[in-house]
Amino acid sequence: MTTPTGKVICDITISADGYSAGLDQTEERPFGDDGGDGSGAGLHAWMFDTPDENRAEIDRLNTAGAFIMGRNMFGPVRGAWDRRWNGWWGGDPPFHAPVFVLTHHAREPQPMDGGTTYHFVTDGIVSALDMARTAAGGGDVTVLGGATTINQYLAAGLIHELRLHIAPLTLGAGTRLFEGVPPLELEQLTARAASRVTHVTYRVST
Amino acid sequence: MTTPTGKVICDITISADGYSAGLDQTEERPFGDDGGDGSGAGLHAWMFDTPDENRAEIDRLNTAGAFIMGRNMFGPVRGAWDRRWNGWWGGDPPFHAPVFVLTHHAREPQPMDGGTTYHFVTDGIVSALDMARTAAGGGDVTVLGGATTINQYLAAGLIHELRLHIAPLTLGAGTRLFEGVPPLELEQLTARAASRVTHVTYRVST
Ligand SMILES: NC(=O)c1ccc[n+]([C@@H]2O[C@H](COP(=O)([O-])OP(=O)(O)OC[C@H]3O[C@@H](n4cnc5c(N)ncnc54)[C@H](OP(=O)(O)O)[C@@H]3O)[C@@H](O)[C@H]2O)c1
Ligand SMILES: NC(=O)c1ccc[n+]([C@@H]2O[C@H](COP(=O)([O-])OP(=O)(O)OC[C@H]3O[C@@H](n4cnc5c(N)ncnc54)[C@H](OP(=O)(O)O)[C@@H]3O)[C@@H](O)[C@H]2O)c1
Repeated sequence: MTTPTGKVICDITISADGYSAGLDQTEERPFGDDGGDGSGAGLHAWMFDTPDENRAEIDRLNTAGAFIMGRNMFGPVRGAWDRRWNGWWGGDPPFHAPVFVLTHHAREPQPMDGGTTYHFVTDGIVSALDMARTAAGGGDVTVLGGATTINQYLAAGLIHELRLHIAPLTLGAGTRLFEGVPPLELEQLTARAASRVTHVTYRVST
Repeated sequence: MTTPTGKVICDITISADGYSAGLDQTEERPFGDDGGDGSGAGLHAWMFDTPDENRAEIDRLNTAGAFIMGRNMFGPVRGAWDRRWNGWWGGDPPFHAPVFVLTHHAREPQPMDGGTTYHFVTDGIVSALDMARTAAGGGDVTVLGGATTINQYLAAGLIHELRLHIAPLTLGAGTRLFEGVPPLELEQLTARAASRVTHVTYRVST
């Protein structure tokens, strides 16, 4: 791997059994069978119900110079882009930076307010990372999810730092972080407990 | 579930991807493909390399009034008991209490020094728990592992408290805690980071 200026970070909330989303995601239930109403509320209770306790971790989420996500995280559209869909985050998304969306279905870039532009990348994870690194300048690149996307980057040895937020529930099924990823040596950098979540940051040996 | 006097606790070390042992366990490699020499040294570095930092968690491990474990944790013998095997823990095991070993292969109880007796239970997890509860008097019962055994107790709603020690490595394959267990609501009771492990204790809603 070439010496990076910024880091490639993965930041994701998982259940105690390692899932970042349940099965059967739909527009009404973006997190699928998540043990609740499909909104991911259980997984993300730490963000929405106890934001003050977790301010540092929440603020850190969106500070990268560029972002990468999978198409299923971006939205519920599958197959061809047969309808207008500009992400879950409204007209002024919290990213304020380029977001590279992995997909097999080409689409023109979609500029939004506040500095966010969605770019759709059809030639794979390395290409998306190259573009994100360039866009980030010397800044960090954050891979936001879902697990399908993160696992590809982990398997390719392209993640430097893994920021996990472990929520107090299990899902039993869904898309699982680390699924199919070969063994990794991790170094535990920090770990911190709040009332409804345990935050753990690992350095990944690549 | 009847009102218990003591608690039923599960205490286990897992990798960041949820495995408590690798594949292909043998006598020479009791933890199988664990990313190292098969001794579980990577998973248990927190116990063996940094015991002072983790004194409370180590001491708490063996304080129950009775223990339950699966036959694969007890040793490498599979099928009939065709040779003498009295556990990995020598003549004076650290349990100092009855240990109920789940197996399909009947065997007479095996008394050891220091108060440990291994009892071999062939009629299932509920029977083993009943006997362990009786043996523990008002004390706690700890289910020590492996994951195959713990998962059965979790699926049956028989565990009150889950004490996890999350080690900084991933195994990629093996026996996984929570595998096949239906969704659980957990309450995070405590979480504490040491330098090479994150300890998290959950109350399980049953
Ligand atoms: N817990 C959290 O913090 C968190 C974070 C993020 C997301 N989530 C949840 O996770 C779920 C989505 O995760 P997921 O794992 O199912 O999917 P995902 O990683 O978001 O997206 C997977 C999709 O992205 C496209 N894709 C991925 N890699 C590609 C590649 N190398 N080349 C081309 N296209 C590629 C493919 O879509 P096409 O083939 O259709 O183009 C693929 O089906 C959602 O429920 C979301 O809400 C949770
Ligand atoms: N990381 C940790 O803290 C930790 C803790 C404990 C163990 N371990 C490791 O985990 C591995 C063992 O775990 P494991 O999940 O493979 O197996 P396990 O749970 O220790 O043992 C499974 C075996 O126990 C017997 N058994 C289990 N449930 C039974 C039931 N309801 N009725 C009758 N027999 C039953 C069966 O043996 P038979 O059919 O052969 O009789 C079964 O194959 C070992 O490598 C051990 O070193 C790690």
